[in-house]
Amino acid sequence: MKVNGIPYRSIWLDPDGRTVRIIDQTRLPHDFPVVGLRTMQEAATAIRDMWVRGAPLIGATAAYGIALQMVEDASDGALDHACAVLHATRPTAINLRWALDDMRAVLAPLPPGERRAAAFARAAAICDEDVEINRRIGEHGVALIEAIAARKPGPVNILTHCNAGWLATVDWGTATSPIYQAVERGIEVHVWVDETRPRNQGAHLTSWEMASHGIPHHLIVDNAGGHLMQHGQVDLCIVGTDRTTARGDVCNKIGTYLKALAAHDNGVPFYVALPSPTIDWRVQDGVAEIPIEERSAEEVTQVWGRDAQGQVRQVRIAPEATPGANPAFDVTPARLVTGLITERGIAPASAEGLAAMFPEHAARAAE
Amino acid sequence: MKVNGIPYRSIWLDPDGRTVRIIDQTRLPHDFPVVGLRTMQEAATAIRDMWVRGAPLIGATAAYGIALQMVEDASDGALDHACAVLHATRPTAINLRWALDDMRAVLAPLPPGERRAAAFARAAAICDEDVEINRRIGEHGVALIEAIAARKPGPVNILTHCNAGWLATVDWGTATSPIYQAVERGIEVHVWVDETRPRNQGAHLTSWEMASHGIPHHLIVDNAGGHLMQHGQVDLCIVGTDRTTARGDVCNKIGTYLKALAAHDNGVPFYVALPSPTIDWRVQDGVAEIPIEERSAEEVTQVWGRDAQGQVRQVRIAPEATPGANPAFDVTPARLVTGLITERGIAPASAEGLAAMFPEHAARAAE
Repeated sequence: MKVNGIPYRSIWLDPDGRTVRIIDQTRLPHDFPVVGLRTMQEAATAIRDMWVRGAPLIGATAAYGIALQMVEDASDGALDHACAVLHATRPTAINLRWALDDMRAVLAPLPPGERRAAAFARAAAICDEDVEINRRIGEHGVALIEAIAARKPGPVNILTHCNAGWLATVDWGTATSPIYQAVERGIEVHVWVDETRPRNQGAHLTSWEMASHGIPHHLIVDNAGGHLMQHGQVDLCIVGTDRTTARGDVCNKIGTYLKALAAHDNGVPFYVALPSPTIDWRVQDGVAEIPIEERSAEEVTQVWGRDAQGQVRQVRIAPEATPGANPAFDVTPARLVTGLITERGIAPASAEGLAAMFPEHAARAAE
Repeated sequence: MKVNGIPYRSIWLDPDGRTVRIIDQTRLPHDFPVVGLRTMQEAATAIRDMWVRGAPLIGATAAYGIALQMVEDASDGALDHACAVLHATRPTAINLRWALDDMRAVLAPLPPGERRAAAFARAAAICDEDVEINRRIGEHGVALIEAIAARKPGPVNILTHCNAGWLATVDWGTATSPIYQAVERGIEVHVWVDETRPRNQGAHLTSWEMASHGIPHHLIVDNAGGHLMQHGQVDLCIVGTDRTTARGDVCNKIGTYLKALAAHDNGVPFYVALPSPTIDWRVQDGVAEIPIEERSAEEVTQVWGRDAQGQVRQVRIAPEATPGANPAFDVTPARLVTGLITERGIAPASAEGLAAMFPEHAARAAE
C-alpha cells in the first residue's frame, strides 16, 4: 500500500535483481528505514530480530533468504545449511517452515547451476500468491463495508485490533484489505485503531499504515472500544487471526475476545479475516485446546516510544517491586464471530460453515 | 495502609498541629514524596496540579485548605476567598463542593477567634468519616472473599481496574478495602491489576499500593482479563465507580464495561464498591443519560514512565500524523453487575435493591 503517495510492498526485489528490500519494522512508526538484504545471513537476522514480522512476510523473507544463499553457493550442502539457519530464527512460525519446505522441493531436484534463477522466481511467486490471497480477502470483505455505506450517511466506522495489515503480509493485509479496497472504491471509511498493549502494534504499525495511506483514523486505548460500540460509533469490527479452529474459534492477539464480547452485546458485526492456511483443522475447541504463549513481563511493565528529543527509548510504567503477567493471545469463541472472511468468501464461524467452504480440508481432517 | 511497613493515610496533620501532609501522587510509583502544606494556596495547588486525586481525598484536602486559611486570616472575607479559590481548582468535583459547603456551615456562625480550632477539628472529622465509610465497605466486601476462600484451595484471585485504592480516599480505598481486610484476616489473596490505559492508574498507583503493603499481585494489560477469566484465573472482580445511577448502572474508568462483559460471560462475580454519596438518584439509564468526558488525545498518544537512567519522561507511541480519541469513562449496565458494596451492605444492582438499602434517598428522588 502507499507511503507518502508511493505504493510499497513489505518485501521486494531491487531492480538489480540481487538485493532484497524490506522495511525495518522495529523502527516504525518513528522512522521508515528500507533495508537491503544481500546474504542469507542478513535475511536470517531480519527474521530473528523481527525487522520483519507477520506469518506471510516471515515466509516470504525466508524464501528470499534461500535465493540469496543460491547466489553465493548453490550446492546441496549450502541449501541444507540455509534451510537450517533460517528455520532456527523463529522455530515455531508455521509459514517459515512451509516456505522453506516449498523452496527446497523446487530447488533440490535442479542442478546447482539452475538453482539461483529458480529460487528468485519461486520466492517472487510466493510473494505474489500471498498478495493475491489477501486481495481476494479484501474483495469479499469490502462487500460488508459497501452494504453499510449504502444504508447510512457519513463514514463507515471500522474497529480493528493489533496489526493485521500489509506490514504483516506482503501487501493489502488481511483485516485491512477490505478497508483499502473500500477506499479504492471511493467509500468513506474511518478506522478506530486499538493501541494493542502490550506490544502496541496498533499504535506503532496500524496507525502508521493508515496515516501513510491517508485513511482517516483515530488511535484509541484498548479500553475504549466497548464505550464506542455502546454509542453507535462502530459499524463493523474486522480483526486478523493467528489460528482458527475447525469450528471457527479464533485465536488472535490478547484482547480480541473483549472486543468480540462488546460487539455481540451491542449488535455490531464482528468479522475475522484470514487466509485459509491459518485454519487448524485438527483443533475444535480453541479455549480448551490452544496453549497460549506467555511472553516476557517486561512487555507489560515497559513501554517503547519517542521522547521529546526524538530519541526512541523504553520507559518503565510500574514500580520495581511489581511483577507483570503477559498472556499474548486469547481465544474468541465462534459464537461471538459473525463471519470468517477468507480468500474463497465469507464463511459462517462454525464447523459446518468452514467445512462447506473448504470441503477438501474438512474431509481430510475427519479421516 | 502500609508503605515499607509503616501505616499511612493519604492526608494527615503533622504533630505540629499546623502542617498538613500529603503524598505528591504525580510522582508515584517512581518516587514517594511526602509534601507539607502550610497555606491555603498550597492546598489549592495540590488539588489543581493533581498531587492529590480521588473524590474523597480532594474533599479532605479542601477542608484542610480552609483550616490553613483560618491560621492566617479567620475573617469572613478570608473564608469566602478560600472557598472560591479552592472551588476553582477542580470545579466539577462533587466532593470538593460538598466539603467546602460543610466547612463554611461549621465556621461561618463562629466568631473568627474560634474558627481555627474548629476548622482543624472539622477537617479531621471529615477524614475520619471517610475512613469509617471505607472501612465498612471493606467489612461487607471481605465476606465475599472469605466465602471464596472457604470453598477453594490457594489464593483468592481478584481483578481490579483503575485505582479505587487508599490513595484515592483517606484510607482503605473503596474497591481495595475488602482486599486489605482479607489480608488482615489472614486470607490468601492475589490481585490482578489492570494497567488502565490511558492514564495508567493501575500500573502507577494500584500496583504501588499492593507492592507497598506487601500484597501478592501482577500487573496485566487491560486486554488480558478476559483470557484470565476464561481459564478460571479470576475468582472475583471488584472495581470502584465515579457515579452510580438509581437503577445500578455504573460509570467508571474507561474499560470497566469490557471487564464486566467478560465476567458475565464466564460466571465470574463482578462487584462495584462505592460510598453511597456517589449514587446519583436523579439518573436512571447510565448509558443514555451520563455524558462521558472526552480528555486530551495526548493521554493516548503519549505514555509516562521512568527511563533506564531513572528520569521520568513522556514518550510518544504513535506516528505524528495519527490523532487520538480519548473517552475517559464508560457505563457498565446494571445487568452485568453482581452487586454494589456500600457502607450499609451489599445491594443488588437494581432500582429495587438500591431503594431498599437507601429508602430515604430513593423516596426523596421520587418526589
